[in-house]
Amino acid sequence: MRALRLPRWKTEPELVEVDEPTPGPGQVVVRIGAAGACHSDLHLMHDFEAGAVPWNPPFTLGHENAGWVHSLGDGVTGLEVGQAVAVYGPWGCGSCARCRVGADNYCEDLAAAPVPGGGGGLGMDGGMAGYELVPAARHVVPLPEGLDPVQAAPLTDAGLTPYHAIRRSWPKLPPSSTAVVIGVGGLGHVGVQILKATTAARVIAVDNRDEALLLAEECGADLTLRSDGSTAEEIRKATGGKGADVVLDFVGVDATLKIGVAAARTVGDLTIVGIGGGSLSVGFFSVPYEVSVQTTYWGSRPELIEVLDLGARGLVRPKTTTFGLDDAVRAYRMMQDGTLEGRAVVVP
Amino acid sequence: MRALRLPRWKTEPELVEVDEPTPGPGQVVVRIGAAGACHSDLHLMHDFEAGAVPWNPPFTLGHENAGWVHSLGDGVTGLEVGQAVAVYGPWGCGSCARCRVGADNYCEDLAAAPVPGGGGGLGMDGGMAGYELVPAARHVVPLPEGLDPVQAAPLTDAGLTPYHAIRRSWPKLPPSSTAVVIGVGGLGHVGVQILKATTAARVIAVDNRDEALLLAEECGADLTLRSDGSTAEEIRKATGGKGADVVLDFVGVDATLKIGVAAARTVGDLTIVGIGGGSLSVGFFSVPYEVSVQTTYWGSRPELIEVLDLGARGLVRPKTTTFGLDDAVRAYRMMQDGTLEGRAVVVP
Amino acid sequence: MRALRLPRWKTEPELVEVDEPTPGPGQVVVRIGAAGACHSDLHLMHDFEAGAVPWNPPFTLGHENAGWVHSLGDGVTGLEVGQAVAVYGPWGCGSCARCRVGADNYCEDLAAAPVPGGGGGLGMDGGMAGYELVPAARHVVPLPEGLDPVQAAPLTDAGLTPYHAIRRSWPKLPPSSTAVVIGVGGLGHVGVQILKATTAARVIAVDNRDEALLLAEECGADLTLRSDGSTAEEIRKATGGKGADVVLDFVGVDATLKIGVAAARTVGDLTIVGIGGGSLSVGFFSVPYEVSVQTTYWGSRPELIEVLDLGARGLVRPKTTTFGLDDAVRAYRMMQDGTLEGRAVVVP
Amino acid sequence: MRALRLPRWKTEPELVEVDEPTPGPGQVVVRIGAAGACHSDLHLMHDFEAGAVPWNPPFTLGHENAGWVHSLGDGVTGLEVGQAVAVYGPWGCGSCARCRVGADNYCEDLAAAPVPGGGGGLGMDGGMAGYELVPAARHVVPLPEGLDPVQAAPLTDAGLTPYHAIRRSWPKLPPSSTAVVIGVGGLGHVGVQILKATTAARVIAVDNRDEALLLAEECGADLTLRSDGSTAEEIRKATGGKGADVVLDFVGVDATLKIGVAAARTVGDLTIVGIGGGSLSVGFFSVPYEVSVQTTYWGSRPELIEVLDLGARGLVRPKTTTFGLDDAVRAYRMMQDGTLEGRAVVVP
Repeated sequence: MRALRLPRWKTEPELVEVDEPTPGPGQVVVRIGAAGACHSDLHLMHDFEAGAVPWNPPFTLGHENAGWVHSLGDGVTGLEVGQAVAVYGPWGCGSCARCRVGADNYCEDLAAAPVPGGGGGLGMDGGMAGYELVPAARHVVPLPEGLDPVQAAPLTDAGLTPYHAIRRSWPKLPPSSTAVVIGVGGLGHVGVQILKATTAARVIAVDNRDEALLLAEECGADLTLRSDGSTAEEIRKATGGKGADVVLDFVGVDATLKIGVAAARTVGDLTIVGIGGGSLSVGFFSVPYEVSVQTTYWGSRPELIEVLDLGARGLVRPKTTTFGLDDAVRAYRMMQDGTLEGRAVVVP
Repeated sequence: MRALRLPRWKTEPELVEVDEPTPGPGQVVVRIGAAGACHSDLHLMHDFEAGAVPWNPPFTLGHENAGWVHSLGDGVTGLEVGQAVAVYGPWGCGSCARCRVGADNYCEDLAAAPVPGGGGGLGMDGGMAGYELVPAARHVVPLPEGLDPVQAAPLTDAGLTPYHAIRRSWPKLPPSSTAVVIGVGGLGHVGVQILKATTAARVIAVDNRDEALLLAEECGADLTLRSDGSTAEEIRKATGGKGADVVLDFVGVDATLKIGVAAARTVGDLTIVGIGGGSLSVGFFSVPYEVSVQTTYWGSRPELIEVLDLGARGLVRPKTTTFGLDDAVRAYRMMQDGTLEGRAVVVP
Repeated sequence: MRALRLPRWKTEPELVEVDEPTPGPGQVVVRIGAAGACHSDLHLMHDFEAGAVPWNPPFTLGHENAGWVHSLGDGVTGLEVGQAVAVYGPWGCGSCARCRVGADNYCEDLAAAPVPGGGGGLGMDGGMAGYELVPAARHVVPLPEGLDPVQAAPLTDAGLTPYHAIRRSWPKLPPSSTAVVIGVGGLGHVGVQILKATTAARVIAVDNRDEALLLAEECGADLTLRSDGSTAEEIRKATGGKGADVVLDFVGVDATLKIGVAAARTVGDLTIVGIGGGSLSVGFFSVPYEVSVQTTYWGSRPELIEVLDLGARGLVRPKTTTFGLDDAVRAYRMMQDGTLEGRAVVVP
Repeated sequence: MRALRLPRWKTEPELVEVDEPTPGPGQVVVRIGAAGACHSDLHLMHDFEAGAVPWNPPFTLGHENAGWVHSLGDGVTGLEVGQAVAVYGPWGCGSCARCRVGADNYCEDLAAAPVPGGGGGLGMDGGMAGYELVPAARHVVPLPEGLDPVQAAPLTDAGLTPYHAIRRSWPKLPPSSTAVVIGVGGLGHVGVQILKATTAARVIAVDNRDEALLLAEECGADLTLRSDGSTAEEIRKATGGKGADVVLDFVGVDATLKIGVAAARTVGDLTIVGIGGGSLSVGFFSVPYEVSVQTTYWGSRPELIEVLDLGARGLVRPKTTTFGLDDAVRAYRMMQDGTLEGRAVVVP
């Protein structure tokens, strides 16, 4: 089969011929129906080098995958060949306190995981190929009726990551609360949809691009604001001076974090989702009382099942553009140039 | 009556004669049985100046107060003259979303509060006097049977502040979790007691003074550690590499926050209680995944009632040394010199 | 002023002339803009007798009230004459553990309440008059911008009661869960709206009247079912055999409770909101594992503020028919005859 | 090896020779160190018949098991031969929403489970033998340091069942709350220990046997009461009239449920753990407002790990009497006669 592989750090991926995988005991091979192209893949190609993460190329790209069960290893039960499935991306040890409840994204026994802190497309072969070997059947999640792999694939990361960040803040998002989404890109626009679908909070979207703010409106944002020097002040004004109960920063640079903390309400949440590399100084006199500042990373398997359900019911629907495997490299270039509309999904 | 008053910023308090207060409609006068001397009072005397807080001297010191109802203003119901009571310290507007559920400590309508962001002993007359005027009856909380004012007074701040910080983290403190208390002083030693009384978490206490670590052991700490360059590493070792689910920093300087973040477990809490003036840089790569970093300030009225119950049942018992009103200034000096044993409580 | 009063048990109310009320210290008089007519008023007129509740006629009817502040008693702060407000209906002692957090509906010191277990229109003079005396300022809640008294009045009970019942079950209503509303009347149709606005649960509405099922569809129900012998089975089928995570029974007779328990999923909630007088036998072998069965009664003041916010934003909008005070008796008759469309609101 | 087997319904178990089991792919054989004898086994021997449960004899008894890993099937990782382990008892499908987070006790795909609604000693071969075949490695839980199989075995049911029932009620058990344990037998006395270890609630124990009340005192109960006509009234008196926030009924007959509901506080929990066959009529006027009535069944795997931790630290310690396999039948007879002290643990 053909596969889009990263041969080494600091290089472009190559489309090459590799052997089809075969499942060992407890494993599953998925025929790929769709593989999302993620902005973080650009970091893999251009920015990472040996030592940055505990794994190395070569491997096949693609960590947002869906398709159909192709073959089952010994001892696998509960799945059928031909069944439409999504692949849960972060692959943990399966035994630690986190993995036990399906939060492989926070696996605490990295040495016992198939690859420490990674998964398919992140140190192991991913979904930009005809088939993907999934090393444990629990990572293979049946699709709900009405959801096809092209819609499902981006939900496994661009859907799951904002979903987890929002779900953990639900108790702070009753009616009369306000949520702010900073950065209405591949994850942020889905974040707006998730907030509208699962809470009655007012949603304010912030971006520095007009088309992003239009997209936020389409997704249901109650108010959109350009990010500039007065953004935080406008958020305070829109909330009667109180500030935002939850701020989700999908950019994560110093400037957006500065807006976030200036806009946050006491006892609120300021959650850093974007890997922009920024940081925020937290101390007794620099942050409103009891605002919780934290990062989040991806999400859990039970959460993936919930976000797939939102997708199947049309409540969450990432914008996508599809490409063939031959065009995958072009998709990444468009992503880099900023000419890509929505999430790129590669259909092998 | 005599009162220990702060006449202006940057000065020592003076013991002077003032008029006894009279309650207006909805107000209560409490005859003071005990008034705790808090480390933050030293900041009031020596460090603050005009503009630092939205209120100014002169006022009577003492924001940890308990005693007996002396007189009731018009329209006050549910209290009786002579009844033993504690005074809830942070006095908010009474109407905003926070005050409505008894969290005056986070009042959002400061302009409508008796004093913005303060209370008795903090901008208004406090309890280091024969009597204290409490401007709203809801701040007067009956003592449970078995608790006298000398025991109750320090619970209103030195008890309530750690109690709130711990209570909000209960969901992260099931059996098999670990809590770290950094700084076993006036608040920290009560924090250890509260953790032991209300959870089954392992408690690790950290301090740089031997007598503080001994006190932590008396209070039930499972492990005590000197704070130095290897503290965080030892905490990781004691937790099987995972780190502490909850870190409570009662010091709050850069060095203790550095220990805290290095010792924290993913998805844990790192809570800054101490007003040491330190800060921590929080970003995607500098803090373990989803560790929540926040300050807390004092606590709510329902929480005060719970902590008084713990006190009445002997489950929480701050160490105290009592002083007469004549000796109050000496008490503060001992506090400054570090020769004070436990919390100083002034009995007028 | 004129007032619609219940002169004694087992009789029709009378429209009579009474004195305008004057506020004492801490009290407020509200000029009534709208007073909802509730089905429970019919029970007051026809079914109750001395001893059934701890209070007796005569009193003015109307426990769903909104209007404008008319006059303020001594010591009341935070309200202005002329301000549009709703009246929080259940009036508790103000000091017990429940009242302290605004849950006067579950006041535990009935002897200290203005009337034990009642409020305006329930043992004390209510809102079917020109003015209502509210005995404590905390019960007077400012209306959010965009909400007038006619819309607000029914939200104080027909909105607040289902809101509380639903809000307490939010943790059991993530995406991929199912909520069932039994009885799409004055409270049930608002319940459907609240579920749709605040969760992403699938909503199934059950009633035995076609027009009620149509109303449920208008309110956003995903599926509507006639209540008959196969209802529970159809709910199981619609949920892949699992059953409903939350069942809200707004009727509360034996037959509806039987449907509810047969439709409930393990670890779900079965909540009895309707005062139909039915009961359910709960035992180890008669109810699915860990289904929680409970009643709920009205709601808390912070919840009222949230439901008013939903109203102001158009997310919850009870169907209403307005009547003058002269026509109030006719409104109750139509309610009894089943010819009333939506909630009757009396505009004095 | 020898095994204590139930040959058919309505008969005594027999000690017979059977083949040692061999693990298939993904399976584990555990050398039994201890197997608890549970009161429910008496029901299996004497009361059950075909159709009562979806499985039938013959099978080896013993559903509370601990020991050491003896052999591992293909594909099992994370376990080592010789390692001390407990066996998680309820064996579900492994894929449904409940099993995904370790709550096999509430498995929703019974047809896909090894035996529907059962486990080792409940339809499949259990631990009253030299070895037990565990059909999925996830059910094998390593023992924490300091806990041996004899202590661990009863924790897997007599510990886990009350632990789950209590843990779900933690939010209702802050300081100043009251928990009532009805029935201080094999599970109830562990329940008292768990309440004391994990909460600061006052604990009231109720039983009709003096020695049970003595045991409750040893376990830390704050108050013990004989169960009779005035028990509920005494609980109300001891709680200032409010009633118990949480009632755990480990008996579950009509009489104890009657005490429970009469003693329960509004918004409390009344949880039926005991399989006494009683039932309670729940309706709007028969139960205090918003008291939740529910059964619970066993517990989840993450909860087992927590309760083992409590055991290892000496915070929970079931009373036990050990028997050899030859004496197992005698142990059951003593249990039936009421002459057994604490939990019977069979050491093969």
